[in-house]
Amino acid sequence: MKFCSNCGHAVTLKIPPGDSLPRYVCDACHTIHYQNPRMVVGCIVEWEDRILLCRRAIEPRYGCWTVPAGFMENGETTQDGAMRETLEEANARIEILPLYALYNIPHINQVYLLYRARLLDLDFRPGAETLETSLFAESGIPWNELAFATVRNTLTHYYQDRRLGHYGFHSGTIERLRISPDTTRRNPDG
Amino acid sequence: MKFCSNCGHAVTLKIPPGDSLPRYVCDACHTIHYQNPRMVVGCIVEWEDRILLCRRAIEPRYGCWTVPAGFMENGETTQDGAMRETLEEANARIEILPLYALYNIPHINQVYLLYRARLLDLDFRPGAETLETSLFAESGIPWNELAFATVRNTLTHYYQDRRLGHYGFHSGTIERLRISPDTTRRNPDG
Repeated sequence: MKFCSNCGHAVTLKIPPGDSLPRYVCDACHTIHYQNPRMVVGCIVEWEDRILLCRRAIEPRYGCWTVPAGFMENGETTQDGAMRETLEEANARIEILPLYALYNIPHINQVYLLYRARLLDLDFRPGAETLETSLFAESGIPWNELAFATVRNTLTHYYQDRRLGHYGFHSGTIERLRISPDTTRRNPDG
Repeated sequence: MKFCSNCGHAVTLKIPPGDSLPRYVCDACHTIHYQNPRMVVGCIVEWEDRILLCRRAIEPRYGCWTVPAGFMENGETTQDGAMRETLEEANARIEILPLYALYNIPHINQVYLLYRARLLDLDFRPGAETLETSLFAESGIPWNELAFATVRNTLTHYYQDRRLGHYGFHSGTIERLRISPDTTRRNPDG
């Protein structure tokens, strides 16, 4: 950020009075421009014993597989966003089930919220940002071609939970080089 | 937003190619300025059978009571943010417990994430944005002076859960005039 989005004058990075963190502050109109993390919302879409994955037609991780997910938009709920992303990336209609995972990725200022979801019909196909959509059984999951640590981690927990017969809620932090489960991880609750 | 934060030229609200929503796009450098919801992170801070509330010294809802909560900052996790807000508003040290509630407030582009937390000692006092900090038993909660629907709603669920002897995870959407529980509400899991 170099210029004020309100008046167009230059901004300076400084700690405003009463604040404790540096912010971009306009030298002319004194607007303080806060910057905050963004939410990525998506879901694990289930059809019988398979789940829906999308092969990415965009960077980052072009060609790799992911669950449907993307940035939450203003004016929608987290569930609305997860449904919209699934429709955009896979043209798939779903019913949202309980929240399954929350991952913090502080070094890129993102929080992932992933729901479980039920695919309503088999009439899905790749959207504009997707090369290929397909249903995978656990034995066929392309573990070495998954796009993101969040996806790999979530699916690992998902199949562990499925074997145990109940789905927990998983929370963790993804750091640059490693993944830490939170001390606050909750017990599975079915 | 009227000006580009990258180059200072005027922006125009339009749907970029391949997108489906209007964005502020710079007429000169063509930067697309996305705007996304913000997260408010906070907690229900427990000390034996009482919880810590803060009376607000700032607008909105000056003079009303709330749980410690505020906007999540870049570079932190949701738990970090909840701990920082509790320290800033009540100078209180806590241990974060499981996630307790998620509320969508789509008309103001906010998502609340509230954790349960354990107060570590009684050495708390009001921060700069707080008039008063106090521990309340259920019988003393100032229900008619609570600052926000999220707080009222979360505390209602909290005391219901406590009577049942197990804490669930609560998810809902707060609309302009009413509060809807999500169909995805999960069962309590202790």
